Amino acid sequence: MRISLIGSGNVATHLGAAFKNAGHKIVQVYSRSIDHATLLAYHLGAAPTTDLASLNPETDVFIIAVKDDAIAAVARELTQYQKLIVHTSGSTDLAALSGLTSNAGVLYPLQTLSANKEVDFSLVPLCVEGADNYITDKLEKLAHTVSKSVYRVNSAQRKTLHLAAVFACNFPNYLYTIAQQLVEQSGLGFELLRPLILETAQKVQDAFPAGVQTGPAIRNDETTMAAHLQLLDSSPQLKELYALLSQAIIKMDNAGQGRK
Amino acid sequence: MRISLIGSGNVATHLGAAFKNAGHKIVQVYSRSIDHATLLAYHLGAAPTTDLASLNPETDVFIIAVKDDAIAAVARELTQYQKLIVHTSGSTDLAALSGLTSNAGVLYPLQTLSANKEVDFSLVPLCVEGADNYITDKLEKLAHTVSKSVYRVNSAQRKTLHLAAVFACNFPNYLYTIAQQLVEQSGLGFELLRPLILETAQKVQDAFPAGVQTGPAIRNDETTMAAHLQLLDSSPQLKELYALLSQAIIKMDNAGQGRK
Repeated sequence: MRISLIGSGNVATHLGAAFKNAGHKIVQVYSRSIDHATLLAYHLGAAPTTDLASLNPETDVFIIAVKDDAIAAVARELTQYQKLIVHTSGSTDLAALSGLTSNAGVLYPLQTLSANKEVDFSLVPLCVEGADNYITDKLEKLAHTVSKSVYRVNSAQRKTLHLAAVFACNFPNYLYTIAQQLVEQSGLGFELLRPLILETAQKVQDAFPAGVQTGPAIRNDETTMAAHLQLLDSSPQLKELYALLSQAIIKMDNAGQGRK
Repeated sequence: MRISLIGSGNVATHLGAAFKNAGHKIVQVYSRSIDHATLLAYHLGAAPTTDLASLNPETDVFIIAVKDDAIAAVARELTQYQKLIVHTSGSTDLAALSGLTSNAGVLYPLQTLSANKEVDFSLVPLCVEGADNYITDKLEKLAHTVSKSVYRVNSAQRKTLHLAAVFACNFPNYLYTIAQQLVEQSGLGFELLRPLILETAQKVQDAFPAGVQTGPAIRNDETTMAAHLQLLDSSPQLKELYALLSQAIIKMDNAGQGRK
């Protein structure tokens, strides 16, 4: 297919590379910044542009990968071309596009994508939704050219997925930061924690997290929890967080979802 | 060295296997349960026992891997043999042993060890502490026979490490459980989240977590956070947790530790 990317950030970069590697033609890369457009277009063998009003119409699908609050405005300018228009946002309704055009879809990659970190795109779950079945089928096929994991996910489900991703990725990463601060305060380095962090994530690749929960809370080890709270005495916020998470884990076990 | 294991749980099992594979002789495995002692002893080519009063004295080091609150009582029975006695607990002071014998040490593996999950022990950070320099040196050498990552860590540091491990492992794993519940409530499966969880942990293997923090909180994306809180309306506890973690991430960014 002939694909144009609207946006030049992490999602556009990774999606563009994956589609190009799968044999699709990346026609144009749009960005408000000509430098950003040029750089990504160069990597993808595409043409850069900063003008939504004069895009190349020889394109099968426009992929919008811009900030959530800019999606609708960008889409409004694209409807004139009467091509398939998809956005890539987890937290944005399909209606943001389908109110503007009947050629609307969503292609949401459920992964944390960084500029300088390659990912094996074949393992990235792609969630597709179309304004009608024909579009959904088309998007599903397109998604399968770059990923083994393609799911039909409607807008309500996608919003919940996006929320779940915050708990599965953003919040754990913040807890890693706290852990780093703690070890560094006692003169040790973050490298001590890296194998533990990796193993914790690897464990749930073929198990469910409730079944492999460890630590003082799941054992209801009050002595250790009290000692930990005392170590956090100088930081009321961390203390509150520790207490809240520990209480929730204790409750989880009582509810019979723990390591039984 | 000739090593006897006091305990037959996850730590005893993994340490025992690592030492055996490195060429050490596992002499005996003690457990209160003869079944547990026999099973682990069988795997390690050792003799099982349930009697601390008649252990084989032809042992260089007794490794205590029992529950924290049983360590001191077990150690008291071992002092008669006048051998090196080490415990493996992150949250227990060396003094729990050194009050009983001068031959005391700690060998703390900083990893989440499960019965049915093999780990590459050469990558497990081992934290050693001895009652004197001679013992610390000896433990450091012993630890290096099974792991590439050996650290001298005193009791105060080890307690902080253990606390940090709760933030790096136990709490993230609980957040994975919440994420699972959320996706399952909307009819999707946990397998959608597994690649995201793994990538989040892999990212911090050669970066610091503050540098790769993503999500609505670090962007101070109030619209998305408000939508997420609304999705959590039926669960006040999750709502509180979401708000607390998000506020902390926003503060972190303001403090200049975020993605700059």
